[in-house]
Parts: sequence; structure tokens; C-alpha cells
Amino acid sequence: MHVYLDNAATTKVSTAAFRAMEPYFTEQYGNPSSLYAFGQKAHEAITEARERIATLLHCEPREITFTSGGSEADTQAIRSAAQWGAKRGKRHIVSTKFEHHAVLHTLESLQKEGFTVTLIDVHEDGIVRPEEVAAAIQEDTCLVSVMTANNEIGTIQPVEEIGKICREKGVLFHTDAVQAVGHIPMDVKKQQIDFLSLSAHKFHGPKGVGALIARKDIPLLSIIEGGAQERGRRAGTENVPAIVGMAEALEEACRKLEENGQKMAALRDRLTQGLLQIPHSVLNGDAEKRLPGHVNVCFEGIEGESLLLLLDEKGICASSGSACTSGSLEPSHVLLAIGRPHEIAHGSLRLTLSEETTPQEIDYTVEAVTQVVQYLRGMSPVWRDLVNGKQPFVIQ
Amino acid sequence: MHVYLDNAATTKVSTAAFRAMEPYFTEQYGNPSSLYAFGQKAHEAITEARERIATLLHCEPREITFTSGGSEADTQAIRSAAQWGAKRGKRHIVSTKFEHHAVLHTLESLQKEGFTVTLIDVHEDGIVRPEEVAAAIQEDTCLVSVMTANNEIGTIQPVEEIGKICREKGVLFHTDAVQAVGHIPMDVKKQQIDFLSLSAHKFHGPKGVGALIARKDIPLLSIIEGGAQERGRRAGTENVPAIVGMAEALEEACRKLEENGQKMAALRDRLTQGLLQIPHSVLNGDAEKRLPGHVNVCFEGIEGESLLLLLDEKGICASSGSACTSGSLEPSHVLLAIGRPHEIAHGSLRLTLSEETTPQEIDYTVEAVTQVVQYLRGMSPVWRDLVNGKQPFVIQ
Repeated sequence: MHVYLDNAATTKVSTAAFRAMEPYFTEQYGNPSSLYAFGQKAHEAITEARERIATLLHCEPREITFTSGGSEADTQAIRSAAQWGAKRGKRHIVSTKFEHHAVLHTLESLQKEGFTVTLIDVHEDGIVRPEEVAAAIQEDTCLVSVMTANNEIGTIQPVEEIGKICREKGVLFHTDAVQAVGHIPMDVKKQQIDFLSLSAHKFHGPKGVGALIARKDIPLLSIIEGGAQERGRRAGTENVPAIVGMAEALEEACRKLEENGQKMAALRDRLTQGLLQIPHSVLNGDAEKRLPGHVNVCFEGIEGESLLLLLDEKGICASSGSACTSGSLEPSHVLLAIGRPHEIAHGSLRLTLSEETTPQEIDYTVEAVTQVVQYLRGMSPVWRDLVNGKQPFVIQ
Repeated sequence: MHVYLDNAATTKVSTAAFRAMEPYFTEQYGNPSSLYAFGQKAHEAITEARERIATLLHCEPREITFTSGGSEADTQAIRSAAQWGAKRGKRHIVSTKFEHHAVLHTLESLQKEGFTVTLIDVHEDGIVRPEEVAAAIQEDTCLVSVMTANNEIGTIQPVEEIGKICREKGVLFHTDAVQAVGHIPMDVKKQQIDFLSLSAHKFHGPKGVGALIARKDIPLLSIIEGGAQERGRRAGTENVPAIVGMAEALEEACRKLEENGQKMAALRDRLTQGLLQIPHSVLNGDAEKRLPGHVNVCFEGIEGESLLLLLDEKGICASSGSACTSGSLEPSHVLLAIGRPHEIAHGSLRLTLSEETTPQEIDYTVEAVTQVVQYLRGMSPVWRDLVNGKQPFVIQ
């Protein structure tokens, strides 16, 4: 059985998205910046894609800048806000300890350039408190960056409340919505989001394309320089097939959002309940305020990497957290942020569903994880110490 | 007749490249950073692509960083070299007046950050003189950036001689080889290139992917921050299908390079000769030291835009220069750099062939351009003044 449960890492391109892209490789391959009709057809295709995405996310088409993905959008959003702030003498940024590295690393770079950054704590439920965001905002704060849904534990943040606070205080608000777009309803206007980052391959669109939605009255800093594409906000020949595929995938995802969400949430809960039958296991993040397809569980006395490798042998694709940091020996910064101790954070398992996931796959996975955890614990000196009482259990 | 003569703007994805990409959208869609076998297959695909490209361009696989295209590679190369220089107290950069805007605009940004830039003149033949590069290098020069082949006029620069000069003087050498790779032989080692930028969609690969080749001992500045992909030099989930497609397209282009080059050069010369039969026309750039498929001609008394629109009506896709700046009313900075006066630079026509271009298409194009130029001149008051001797001809 091949069970793909790593949809937070990347997804299969949907048939509809692939079909939409196909003609733009070998037939309608014109350069959208060209004057002739053949190029203008490509231009029309990206204009239409922009309009479709704008409608789905409730922004204006001109507020969308196509990028090569979520990390580029995050980098550009934060650097643009920093530039906006610096011009106003505001060099303080508020964010959280469990953001994606695209946000955290950009903030680290800005700190070297003279900005100060407050990373607020995340509670054990994996939810940021709006009042703590409000309290962290200073006179010289230019930007608040809080992700819509966490990529490792799937918890959904109170974005609308944070947006309201930022708007009232005259602070820009960025949200990395890479895990959220296409999975939960997003409304840039209602949620008072100034910058939103998204990535197509997280909702069955192609890799290598994403978008930065930025409020029209905020100038963007171009991090890739060159031609005047994207109204001077992002240089480089537009990736026409990928942009078209992204719009198609997003429309499909949004159309089926409720239906797929309900279906996935039911399977997610079935999976969670099954995994929590394993002794000394704990769900990471709030059980309700989470993405419909997202499960993250820690097992005491287990090394996440061994767990993944043995699950792989059983045909199950899973991760310990973010794909972007796999191979790293450091425990997840997200799990540390929600207060998991190092030894527990090492034993994490992220399973992320798609709308194609079946109950059979879920049951197979519960059984496989149960067996593998038992097997690994049987070999583990750490586990023996726990069982023999030489060391206290952390997860009761 | 549909005649696509804008292959310097973008090309059709080759059948082989498209077929190579195809499985990675909907079948082998795993995330290359994942531990499980399904993700590792994607990882192997990009490793193989990296090795193939390294062999073709004579560098080491680890010297290749995949980017979203040429502009990103240019920005990253120049910013990385600037960082390298700043650490050594070297804040001067030498480049030329006819570089691509991805280079020129990045240099402008660096000037605002305290760097000084010398843009050397380009001669009327569109060729940079190595001795003038040497003369422009100062004690505090950290980087020389000279393109391999110009994107508007197609002239090929003495890259190897410039590379030698830079290596001797301990200055880094970057070349924007976006127009050259896949069209003329490139050898990063022999040409002593420290940084090379390339873009797949210029050689029948897909849009939205390119690479920066950087000498292994020079640290790269990550302009897109986030995960540890590309050994920490470029964040974001790897665009697997596009990377695979790029390698396939490059291999095909290099395999057929000589054969296609000869075929295209013959047609290019036939086209040039035909166009130069039109009175008061001039070829831009040296007739020999140019890309095999590249023609750029100025017609006196003509507005380039009208010419393009009327050619479009006849089914011919052509440009006045760079697609990246089309729509701009400014005359081409490249044509001004080689000394064309404003009124002549406005009347430019760039026709760029592919290996699929036929003699019939060339003859049809010569006839069409001849007719359109005649027609436009018939309506032009500027032309009447020239003919009536009220104004002297510039092009004799």
C-alpha cells in the first residue's frame, strides 16, 4: 500500500491544474511582455489567472504579485514592510516563535541590518493570543507577521483579530498563509491582511509558483531585479503555465473547500484518535482549531527519523515536521515553541491528508504506526529507563 | 503564415523537455527534502539534472544553484559578489552600458548602498574590449560583470579574455549567459567564470527556472530566505519538473549545438542580407561575432512599435529589442550604448530564429518587412523630410 500523508510538504498537481497548464509549454508559449497577439494571449492568461485568484481571496487583481513560491513571497513581504517602516523611523517587528523559516530567517537578516524583533511566545495549544500581539506592539513597530496556519502542527491562528489590532494601531500585518490557502476560507479584506504569502504546490497546483498579495497603497521592494514585469515589483519572464495552473488549482480547492474539509476533518479525527491509543502519545496543537487534514503527534521514547524510515518501508510517506528542515538534527523549533521538551520534540510525527485520502489508508496507517512505535520502543534504552522508572514519563 | 522569430524572448518547450517534466507533476510529485523513498526519487531527479548540467557547462554539480530564472541568478550573483567585496573593503564594480536590466538595476541598488560602479562603453560593433575592462579595474574592484551575448543585438563578448584578466587581478567575474547557454559552447572552467547566470526558457526548457553557477569557494548570499534547500543558498521547495526539464533541454541543445548553429547562421545571414536590401537600414552589432540566430536591424524613419504591429498582422512575431522593456517609450539602452542616435534606435527590429525556422519563413519575413517599412515610410512626415533633404539621413 502506498499512502501519501505528507500533503503539507507538497501535493500532487490536480488533473484540472495540469490540463490547464499543458498548452502553455509547447503551444501558447509566447512571452507575455511581447506586443504581438501570440504574446498577448499569454498575457491574457496571466491576467485571467490574477483575476480569478483575486476573486477567491477577496483582493484586487493589481494587489497580486506572482512569485516563485511561498519563501520568496515571505521574504519580499517582510523586506517591503521593513523598507516602509524604515522610511517612517519604525524599525521594530513583531512575530512569533513558531513561524516558518522563510519568516524567521528574513527577520534574522533584518536584525543584522539594525531592526529589532520581538518573537512572542506560542501557547501549548499552538495558538497565538491576539492580546499578546497587541502588547508587543511598540511606538516604532512597523510590522506584525503571524502565520495563518502553522506548517508543522496545523493550528489556525486568530488572523482576523490580529489584523484588526494592527489596522487600529497603524502597523502593517503580514500572514504566511502557505498552509492555509485552499484549505480554509481566506478573505484578505475582511481579515484586514496587508500582506499574504501563498504557494501553489500546497493546494494541488505546481511547484515553483506562488503569490504575494500586498495592499495596493504599500510599495513593494523588488528582491529580484530586472525587467518591468509584475508592474516593476518582480522581474523575470512570467511563469505562464505555472500561474495558470495555480489559478486553476486554487479555484478547484476553494470550490470543494467545505466538502473536502469535512471529509478530511473526519478522517483526521479518526487518525488522531487511533494514534492517541498508543500509550504515552500526545497531540501537538489544539484538537479543534487546526487544518482539516493536519495531525501531529509526539511519542515518548522514540526518534522521529527511525519512525519515518520504518513507516516508509510500509509504504507510508510521513514527516517529522517541516520538509524544509529534514535532515537537521535540531528538534523542531515549533514543538519547542509550544513547550515540548527536547526529548519529546524529537519523537514527532506529522501526517497530513488530502481529499483523496481513504478510511482504509487511515486505518492502515494507525496500525502501522502502532506497530512501529512498539517495535522501536522495544529496542530503545531510553524507553526501558522510562518503563523501569529510572526516568519519569513526560507524557502521561 | 505564423512565423515565430522572437526566440530570444522565449522559446517553445521541446517535446523531449516536456516529456521529461511530465511525470513530476502528477506521479513523482514528492518533496525532494523528504526522507521517504518517494521524496528521495524527486531528490535523485534533481541530483541527476545537476550532474548533467555540470557536465555540459564544465563545472562541479555543487557549484550549481537552481533559481527561478535568469533575473534571480543575476541578482544573486551580483549581490553575493558585492558581499564578498564588502568584507574585503572592495566596493567598486565594473560592468558595461549594455547589460541586461537584471544586472543594471541590481548595480543601481548597490550604488544606493555605497558601492561605486563603472559602466564601460561598448563599441559600435557591440563588442566589449578586454583591455578596457582591464583599465577600469581599480584597487577596490570586487566584481566585473559582462554578459556573454547581448540579448538585444546578439553580439558575443570575449568572455574568456575577460575571465583571464579578472583571475589575474583577483577580481570576481560574473557573466549573464542567459542568451548564450545552449546556443554557443560554454566552458565555465576554461573561460574562468566565477558566476554564470542561465535561464531554461531561452533554450527550449520551461519558464520559471534557471541556475546560478558559482565557483565553489565563494559563499552565496541567499536572496530568498527560508529552508535549507540548495545547501542553504536558495530557499523554497525545489521546482522538480522544471529542473528536470531544464537539464533535458540543455542536453538536447548542446548535443545539436553545432548542427543547429550552422543551420541557423545560414538562415540568419540570408535574413540579414534580405533586410539590408531595404534602403537606409543598418545591422546592429558585428555581423560575425553574434549568436547564430540573432538579427537586429534599424530602419531610418520608422517607429519600431508600428513595425511590430503590422508584422503581427502578417503573422510574424518579432520584437524591437528586449521583451522585458516592451511598452516602454524609451529607446533601447543597448542601441544607445553602441552609439545609435535616438531617432535611429527607435526604429529597431529584432528577429531571433530557432532551429525550426525554415527558409520559407525567412523569405516571407524579408518580403513582409520590406513591404511594411515601405508602407510606414510612405506615411511618415519624418521620412518625407529625409527624402526632401530637409533633414540629413543618418544611415547612408
